[in-house]
Amino acid sequence: MKIVDLKVHPIAIADPPLRSSYGLHQPYALRTILELVSDEKIVGIAETHGGDAIAKGFEALRSRVVGADPFRLAGLLIDLVEGPVQGSSLDRSQTFHVPGENPLDMKQRLYSALEIAALDLCGRALKKPVCDLLGGRVRDEVAFSAYPFYKHAGGGGEGADARPDEWGEALAPEPLVREVEIETVRQLHRAFPGLPLRMDPNCAWSVETSVQVGKALAKELGNGGYLEDPTAGMDGMSAVRKKLLEAGIDTPLGSNVAVTCFPDLEESVRKNAVQVVLCDVHYWGGLRAVQHLGKLCKTFGLGLSMHSNSHLGISVMAMAHAAAVTPHLTYACDTHYPWSDAKDEVVAGGKIKFVDGCIRISDRPGLGVEIDQDQLARGRERYSKCPYRKRDDEAEMRKHVDPNWKRILPRW
Amino acid sequence: MKIVDLKVHPIAIADPPLRSSYGLHQPYALRTILELVSDEKIVGIAETHGGDAIAKGFEALRSRVVGADPFRLAGLLIDLVEGPVQGSSLDRSQTFHVPGENPLDMKQRLYSALEIAALDLCGRALKKPVCDLLGGRVRDEVAFSAYPFYKHAGGGGEGADARPDEWGEALAPEPLVREVEIETVRQLHRAFPGLPLRMDPNCAWSVETSVQVGKALAKELGNGGYLEDPTAGMDGMSAVRKKLLEAGIDTPLGSNVAVTCFPDLEESVRKNAVQVVLCDVHYWGGLRAVQHLGKLCKTFGLGLSMHSNSHLGISVMAMAHAAAVTPHLTYACDTHYPWSDAKDEVVAGGKIKFVDGCIRISDRPGLGVEIDQDQLARGRERYSKCPYRKRDDEAEMRKHVDPNWKRILPRW
Repeated sequence: MKIVDLKVHPIAIADPPLRSSYGLHQPYALRTILELVSDEKIVGIAETHGGDAIAKGFEALRSRVVGADPFRLAGLLIDLVEGPVQGSSLDRSQTFHVPGENPLDMKQRLYSALEIAALDLCGRALKKPVCDLLGGRVRDEVAFSAYPFYKHAGGGGEGADARPDEWGEALAPEPLVREVEIETVRQLHRAFPGLPLRMDPNCAWSVETSVQVGKALAKELGNGGYLEDPTAGMDGMSAVRKKLLEAGIDTPLGSNVAVTCFPDLEESVRKNAVQVVLCDVHYWGGLRAVQHLGKLCKTFGLGLSMHSNSHLGISVMAMAHAAAVTPHLTYACDTHYPWSDAKDEVVAGGKIKFVDGCIRISDRPGLGVEIDQDQLARGRERYSKCPYRKRDDEAEMRKHVDPNWKRILPRW
Repeated sequence: MKIVDLKVHPIAIADPPLRSSYGLHQPYALRTILELVSDEKIVGIAETHGGDAIAKGFEALRSRVVGADPFRLAGLLIDLVEGPVQGSSLDRSQTFHVPGENPLDMKQRLYSALEIAALDLCGRALKKPVCDLLGGRVRDEVAFSAYPFYKHAGGGGEGADARPDEWGEALAPEPLVREVEIETVRQLHRAFPGLPLRMDPNCAWSVETSVQVGKALAKELGNGGYLEDPTAGMDGMSAVRKKLLEAGIDTPLGSNVAVTCFPDLEESVRKNAVQVVLCDVHYWGGLRAVQHLGKLCKTFGLGLSMHSNSHLGISVMAMAHAAAVTPHLTYACDTHYPWSDAKDEVVAGGKIKFVDGCIRISDRPGLGVEIDQDQLARGRERYSKCPYRKRDDEAEMRKHVDPNWKRILPRW
């Protein structure tokens, strides 16, 4: 079997105006859908970050991909993920770049999507689910966590394509944000007393604020949850952990910012900066990389969870298959999927359903989903018509909130 | 595809009387050959440690294996390698047990062989080499290192089955052993000036002796080689490393004794005890485990090499496929294979050939080798006739050298 074509589809999907310390989500999230076509006319698919830069990245790899045996593609492209380490952990972190926009992890992102599409292609050719090509599932159902956000009014999309707002505005006045966040978590804990809770200020806090909040919410977050990226940088996370431990609080710190790739782990372990790694199949190097990471986390006593951005059903299934073959996944995965509009789903049959908070791993070949080509065409059209070519939450904040808005860390 | 039968073949193969700090090799090395038979009459094979205990271990797993889908077997049996950690690193080490005789790694050994046999079965069913089921090769040729031993006179085997001695006796008088070993390495360095050298006293030395030898052979072992298990235990290795570094000598310490499984790695990294992990597909958890380990070693700046015991061609090929799909394999692999007698090979066509010190990874399905059933039957007969049911180098020393011989560490 040979790959005879690589199709790269940049698409745009409506995204509600969610707020985070990065700024504000643009009306469209950008995604890329890949199709790897075999000489037997079988098509393997994957979904990853969007915009022009990554689409160009795939084009630059076209000559290495077309003609390759999909069973060997991951090995053939291994230089993309095993090359020399670039930058310091701070450069590689998501402190100054939103996920999907850091040039230092471009190679990993390209590799991940191609590995996943090749696995899907091989699975379809063999009529085997992807998880069966990776040793076989260790769980049939993959749990995902719920994910509330502060948000502006609006449902995403622009102009005639603007979507209805299902949720309405949910903002805290800036000077009150810390108190409101603490109170929110307390109320969630009261409402769902048995449920593990997390909170993710996306590095917005100083070490001192992080420690204060960690202490204030020791009970609420300590019950099987974690405190995600309270502050920026490996040293900041390490200092928060140390001070919380000194106060007798062992709420673990999760991160998809300080630790975003394998080369960050040595420093993190040495400094005890991050206790729960939030991996991401889109930039850690694909599904096998998540399996490697699981073994590494188990070995070093770290927890493992999964990070997410705005995405569609192909990504959901890649995440679910990764989770199904990673024994040491110690937390339910994150996903923005519930925030996406069914109107934009490119998976045939519409949005994939969670049952009791879980995605079930079926016996269907590959990732288990097909592309609806009409829907994909609509996504491409949306991309061609919208003005966004990369994710820029800061620009969106400047447009709607404050023309001088900058990401300042720590903010509180 | 379903597994309909598991065949467990205990065999014995002639083994020359090699000396090490464990004692003396018995006239026969014991191996187990596995056959996993599918409902389509395709047979997957693997080779592992021998003797009665492991054969019983496979029998105990029979009901979990027969009936399983070979694509899912590794996931189904994951509890064997992801269960709770047993013992301290010293209990798990090979300080007091030769490889293959530690009850604490029995589960990993069983799992490894079953994973490999399942991969071979899947590869044969799909007409794909095993490495293509693991992401695809990152190298076509796998380099192996040469491996001289001190030995007694004799070629292995007993009675009418005694084999000619191709090499003769090669022993150093005990009081001179350290000087002779140092001189041997120096002469090797002179004879092969560009070649990286290693030496492996199998924990026989005290920390002080280890440091002395490390200093004496700084030039010879520092040139891309390593000093393997000079002393016993994680703390001993750590002390040797520290003292050598203080003396400005950064010859790395390799180990297949202090570190024998994933749970040992955290302590080793923390104490900087082992810089080159000598993995083994037979007890680290199979081929995927070696891939995980490669990523872990790269992440923590550790080298990776491969350990070996007396074995036949099926093990050679499992090692070669593991090496082919592990980018971060930083040293040529060890193998005892050249010491085995062609007369005992169970692989059809006879012993696998090294070309320029390398095994070439072909495109043949599975591991790329078939069983010669007549040869396998002879191996079983040899097993049934010989008195050995487990590896015991100490007993063999008592028989031939000193009735009171014990493994005393450190010896020098």
